[in-house]
This record gives sequence, C-alpha cells and structure tokens, in this order.
Amino acid sequence: MRPHSKNKIRLFVETPLTSAAEVDLSADAAHYLCNVMRLNEGDTLSCFNAADGEYDARIIRAGKKNCRVRILSQIKAPAVSPDIWLLFAPLKKDKTDFVIEKATELGVRAIIPVITRNTITERVKTERFIAQAKEASEQCERTDVPVVRPPVALGTLLDSWPAERILFFLDESLGGADCVSTFDQLKGQPAAVLVGPEGGFTPGEKAELDNLPFVRGISLGPRILRAETAACAALAVWQAVAGDWKKGE
Amino acid sequence: MRPHSKNKIRLFVETPLTSAAEVDLSADAAHYLCNVMRLNEGDTLSCFNAADGEYDARIIRAGKKNCRVRILSQIKAPAVSPDIWLLFAPLKKDKTDFVIEKATELGVRAIIPVITRNTITERVKTERFIAQAKEASEQCERTDVPVVRPPVALGTLLDSWPAERILFFLDESLGGADCVSTFDQLKGQPAAVLVGPEGGFTPGEKAELDNLPFVRGISLGPRILRAETAACAALAVWQAVAGDWKKGE
Repeated sequence: MRPHSKNKIRLFVETPLTSAAEVDLSADAAHYLCNVMRLNEGDTLSCFNAADGEYDARIIRAGKKNCRVRILSQIKAPAVSPDIWLLFAPLKKDKTDFVIEKATELGVRAIIPVITRNTITERVKTERFIAQAKEASEQCERTDVPVVRPPVALGTLLDSWPAERILFFLDESLGGADCVSTFDQLKGQPAAVLVGPEGGFTPGEKAELDNLPFVRGISLGPRILRAETAACAALAVWQAVAGDWKKGE
Repeated sequence: MRPHSKNKIRLFVETPLTSAAEVDLSADAAHYLCNVMRLNEGDTLSCFNAADGEYDARIIRAGKKNCRVRILSQIKAPAVSPDIWLLFAPLKKDKTDFVIEKATELGVRAIIPVITRNTITERVKTERFIAQAKEASEQCERTDVPVVRPPVALGTLLDSWPAERILFFLDESLGGADCVSTFDQLKGQPAAVLVGPEGGFTPGEKAELDNLPFVRGISLGPRILRAETAACAALAVWQAVAGDWKKGE
C-alpha cells in the first residue's frame, strides 16, 4: 500500500543487531537475497528483529549459500505489537495461510491454532505457519514477528488460561455483546480473540466458554461471516478501539 | 459459522416471491440444484431477493435445465444492508475475488471497481463480480445482493459524486484521522470506503482527494496493510461503529 517502502527488502534476522556489526545470514536468507532477488555486494536492505528494531544494512559478501551484511544505522526503534492473541481452529490450507498473513498485518502478538470438536485437522504445520508469520511481518513493516504456538486442544488451553487475559469469543447465535463497547470497556487488558471452526462450536464447548469468567461473547452483526472473515473483522475492530490504531483521544 | 444454516440451500431469485407462487428457476439454478446438488422433487430450499425477503420453497419439477419451485412461507422479511459502498482498485484475480466475497459478507450495499493511475487492469470482469456477489450473498444469509457497478475512472467517479455521501479514503501516510471517532461522528450519513491499488495513489490523485469536501482521510494503524486487508478492516470497523453490528446504545 505504501509505494515508497515497496522497493526495499526487509529481512527478519534473529542475530542481535547493532551499528557496525557484521552478520552472517542464514542459508535461506542468502539464497533469497542473492539467488532469488539477485542482490550483490554493496546492495542495501534492512534487517529487523523484535529486540533491536530495524537497521539499514549493506551486503559485504554475497554468495549462494553465504551472505554477510554490515549493519548500518537504526531506522526504527523496536516496537512490540499490541497485546492481542488470535486463537483459531485451522481451516483448509489456503484459508489458514490467509488467516496467518492477515492476523500478522493486523498486529497480533501471538497466533494459537486450537483444536475443537469440529476442527478439520489434516495436519497442522506449525513450521509453515511460523515461516508465513515471518514473511508477513517482513511485508507489513512490523519489527516483531507474532509467536506461533503449536496446536492445542481447546479444553487444554482453557484449563491453563491466564486469568487476566480476556478471551473474546465470536458468538454466532447473535447473543453476543456489542463489540465496540465491549472492547472499549476492557481496553488496557491483555486480550485474545477465539474464532471457531467452519462447523461451529459444539453445544458443550459453547456452554464451557459461556461459564468461564475471562470469556466474553461478542457479536459481529447479522450476516454469517466465514471463519477467516470473522478473524480479520474482530482483530480490526479491536485494534481500532483498543489497540494501536487508536489516535489521541 | 452457524452450523444449523449450513445444510439448507439459499438461492437468489429475481422473480417476485409470494406464498403459493410457482416459480421457474433459471437454467443455471436448475443445473446447480438438480445436477450439482442432486435435489429432487419434494426437496426444500429457500429463495430470496431484496424486495421480498426469504421464503421456504419446495421443488415441484426437477429437470436438468428446468426446475420449478413452489414458494412456501416467508422466513425472513426483506432487509437492506447498511448504506456503505466499497470502491476499490482491482487487484490480481484471486485477491479481487476475495475482496468481492468479503465485502459482501461485511454488508456493503454497492461495490465499484475504480481505475486509478497505478491500477493493474488486465480486464475487469463485471459479470464475474456480479456472480460472486450473488454467491457470497447466498452464503452469508443476506437477503439483498450488493450492486456491482462497471469499472469507472477515479476522476469520473469523483466528478459526479453525490455530495451527501462521505468518502472515507485510507490514508497510507499515517496522516489520516482516527477511524472509530470519524465513523462515529459521521454515522447516519451514506458512506463509501475507497481503497487504493497496491502501488498507491499518485501524489496528484492524493491531492485531488484531499481537496474534496466529502472526502475524509482515515488511518488504519502503523502497519502496512495489503489492499484487500485494508478493505476488510475498514468495512468491519465501519459496520461495528456506524453500521448494523451496533447493538442498542
């Protein structure tokens, strides 16, 4: 969307970043920069991670499997994304990819695949999700990358839930509360959004959720939203009301 | 998302619907119901349109190209979606498909493809967009279908813009206003959301937009959103603040 940022490659790098440091990139990163993007010695890019922020960098050795960069000056201080998690029941491959990408753009701090009774779980590929979250972070100019957790059963997750974190659950029965006022009332508290599978929660799961003190059912209007639409919509409204889209009151 | 609604086929039908009427469906609908979904005489579905709402219906003649239904009782009164339009610069095929589907789920009344300087316009297939909007409406339980207009140049659209309709423009420069308070201040007015192409608006286009009295620049936070993410996010926040997601104050 912002054309001026389109041309510069942003690379997530786990190594600590400080001005004048020389960093050997991973073989994957070397392949991407030198083979795919055809960068050479002297070319610039930027490197970032959550701890150090973002730095300009220049390639000082370009090879197919080895690439070394010199870290130049800091261009962005480290910034952590708002304290919201996305919990979602994995969908078909394309849709899950979409959810990971969009949740990253929409600034979640963590992504947790949740297995419910009606979840279609061919196989949850956590490594793949992590790579997607990293790539989406590179694209959307975050300096942090969402943490992607391994899949967990809904019951197990609820049993060990941190009591201070509000779990907003998308109530499909239209019985949920107004999302704007609910998010507003609870802003400042750590939060999570839970999106059920295409088949919905079972009555038992729904009853369990309704009885937990940290759970709030919210409504996203009268139309039926697909799971991936509901995830995006809830995260967008939360960021707008209680997250970092909010501009000075 | 709502399992109980999953099993019943909803069909958009242009013919007027009244109880006890017999309606011959289009050849496409007959093919879909009788060949693809393998429905037979006696099977039920529901039929809807914006003027008449939604009715139960029973198949009384099933054929590969001809299908006649008897309209039973009304199950949903006609309801028009909130008065928000989506204006967007067409993207690559998959992403455009996605935008049409999501905008329909998110309750837009009209979808207008807009040609800007940086728009990649291989070919805008209005007929295809109309079919997608119809299908998404069937899925998401709307009774109306968004109007899809033929593509129009941004300048032409702005020249004939209805003055009372606020045009929210997603300002990528971070200079835009807070979206929640802006939507809230202007609620009750007809609205539209304009999402630029991947390459952004040109400085000339941006200057033109900034100078128009019905345009308001809004911000969707510090991360870079892809065009399709921005469209969903803006529509979700608008519906939550000023549209039909709002529950009694």
